[in-house]
Amino acid sequence: MAAKYQLGNITYTKLDIGIGDDAAAWHNTNRLTLITTDCLVQNVHFKLGEITWYELGWKALAINLSDIAAMGGIAEYAFVTLGLPPDSEADDIDELYRGLLDLAQHHKVALAGGDISTSTTFFINIALTGNAKTQLLKRSGAQTGDLIAITGYTGMAAAGLRLISNGCHAHDQDTPLRQAFCQPIPRVTEGVEILAAGAHAAIDISDGLVADLKHICCASNVSASIDLARIPLHPALKESFADEALDLALGGGEDYELLFTAEIGIMLHIINKLETPIHIIGAIEAGVSGEIRILNSDGSEYKLQTFGWDHFAY
Amino acid sequence: MAAKYQLGNITYTKLDIGIGDDAAAWHNTNRLTLITTDCLVQNVHFKLGEITWYELGWKALAINLSDIAAMGGIAEYAFVTLGLPPDSEADDIDELYRGLLDLAQHHKVALAGGDISTSTTFFINIALTGNAKTQLLKRSGAQTGDLIAITGYTGMAAAGLRLISNGCHAHDQDTPLRQAFCQPIPRVTEGVEILAAGAHAAIDISDGLVADLKHICCASNVSASIDLARIPLHPALKESFADEALDLALGGGEDYELLFTAEIGIMLHIINKLETPIHIIGAIEAGVSGEIRILNSDGSEYKLQTFGWDHFAY
Repeated sequence: MAAKYQLGNITYTKLDIGIGDDAAAWHNTNRLTLITTDCLVQNVHFKLGEITWYELGWKALAINLSDIAAMGGIAEYAFVTLGLPPDSEADDIDELYRGLLDLAQHHKVALAGGDISTSTTFFINIALTGNAKTQLLKRSGAQTGDLIAITGYTGMAAAGLRLISNGCHAHDQDTPLRQAFCQPIPRVTEGVEILAAGAHAAIDISDGLVADLKHICCASNVSASIDLARIPLHPALKESFADEALDLALGGGEDYELLFTAEIGIMLHIINKLETPIHIIGAIEAGVSGEIRILNSDGSEYKLQTFGWDHFAY
Repeated sequence: MAAKYQLGNITYTKLDIGIGDDAAAWHNTNRLTLITTDCLVQNVHFKLGEITWYELGWKALAINLSDIAAMGGIAEYAFVTLGLPPDSEADDIDELYRGLLDLAQHHKVALAGGDISTSTTFFINIALTGNAKTQLLKRSGAQTGDLIAITGYTGMAAAGLRLISNGCHAHDQDTPLRQAFCQPIPRVTEGVEILAAGAHAAIDISDGLVADLKHICCASNVSASIDLARIPLHPALKESFADEALDLALGGGEDYELLFTAEIGIMLHIINKLETPIHIIGAIEAGVSGEIRILNSDGSEYKLQTFGWDHFAY
């Protein structure tokens, strides 16, 4: 990675070895070390021309920050692998790094290494480290009686992707749906507060609300019910996709909101503490591990039409 | 990553959180944490059909282990990102993981996370963590008067690649040249010993002997001379490429041998301590930073025909 892309004045000073040697190195503290890795691949996660290079760099880091956030951690160092088609323009790569570094700077993340190769298919992979106190937000901690909540709104990114596929071009920056897909905001400070408050379990919503709740329930050996009337629908989602808004909110992926469970007192504390809207949507129950029931207001079960994010279907 | 690929009984027990949550987590010690990341991309670093899936998995980890080795560190956790064409065969991916895990097991490395996506171009990226005592082998530590040495032989992988490109197929496993390219042996224990002995600088030879020596010299603000008569030529290299053996040894990349500098007493200690052949090939000198002079036995300067590893030229 070219030295000009490193973030010299932020947490880089904590590194014993940064860019320019065989590996990065830093001194440990007595906190937990976290690592996550996620990639974006051309024609799977994005199509060039539909997302700007700035947004692509931002999103590649955002999806990894979201994983650290879902553990209640603080991100530290990013390691960026780029697979670039031979005809890549230097200006485009500069824009990609500008997006990545704007988000990195906001969260005090330093670029500490990486790899670059040519590749017929464009891809970007980031490995992101972080740290946390001895406790973490795990998927496996949900307990019977916990309330289930989400930060913000879901279905937005899936709706944004539909708009883009229907011809909303890269420079129409003004819709919150497009922005949800192209430039998601990772819930980093929210994750730290949710952990500190004593929530039992958390995950970031990348596969879809129901699919990710299923991940928590499977890991925690519990079931869950969702109260359909409590699913928050963003005005922009209702406006653009009136008939499908609910299914998009339940099944659409890549929102990178946090889904978490906590007992009621802690939940109320979190709602009071955070400015971000928090919506309680259901409860953790005993029952068949991993079973999710979506309930209409009359108690009958709602059948979700679409389920989760399917890369292959892009 | 499918749980069946994790390495449950090795260092995995040290992980607080392993595969199956948003990020991996472990408790820090008071050692240095190291991270490196390297990728292999189809038609850039390998061609399917020319390398076996087993070798591809092995090599993807080996090139990262080599970076940790070049710092004198011990590898710990691997995070594997796979970009798989939609028509990938499950048996091939099993073979890839078998190769990766055979090498991981040998070095007590645990698979702790990763990401999988479809991708028209096959790629594998690994982020590898490690740890080291407070001292590290850096590129920047070379001092005037140091001797320069390498482990093993160079030019082997570049020669192997030529043989493969000329039709030596995946199942002709019996040549050391082919093996050097397809299944390199990272010099992990050698790196630890070289660090412990007190060597001043080290790098792994991925770009080529002269190119990587240049990296050390630039980082250390010194120059170097190579004694041409001291460049070791493996019998298999001389047999297959009589006329070009020397240029391949000087310029061919991807050998993943260690290149290091140390004062003479320490160098002799390292040679006595290690079973691996160590060849002294030159000396660090004051002079123009980064300048490498290759000297014939009469003191005249030798001009290298090929220089370094060029992915684009594959």
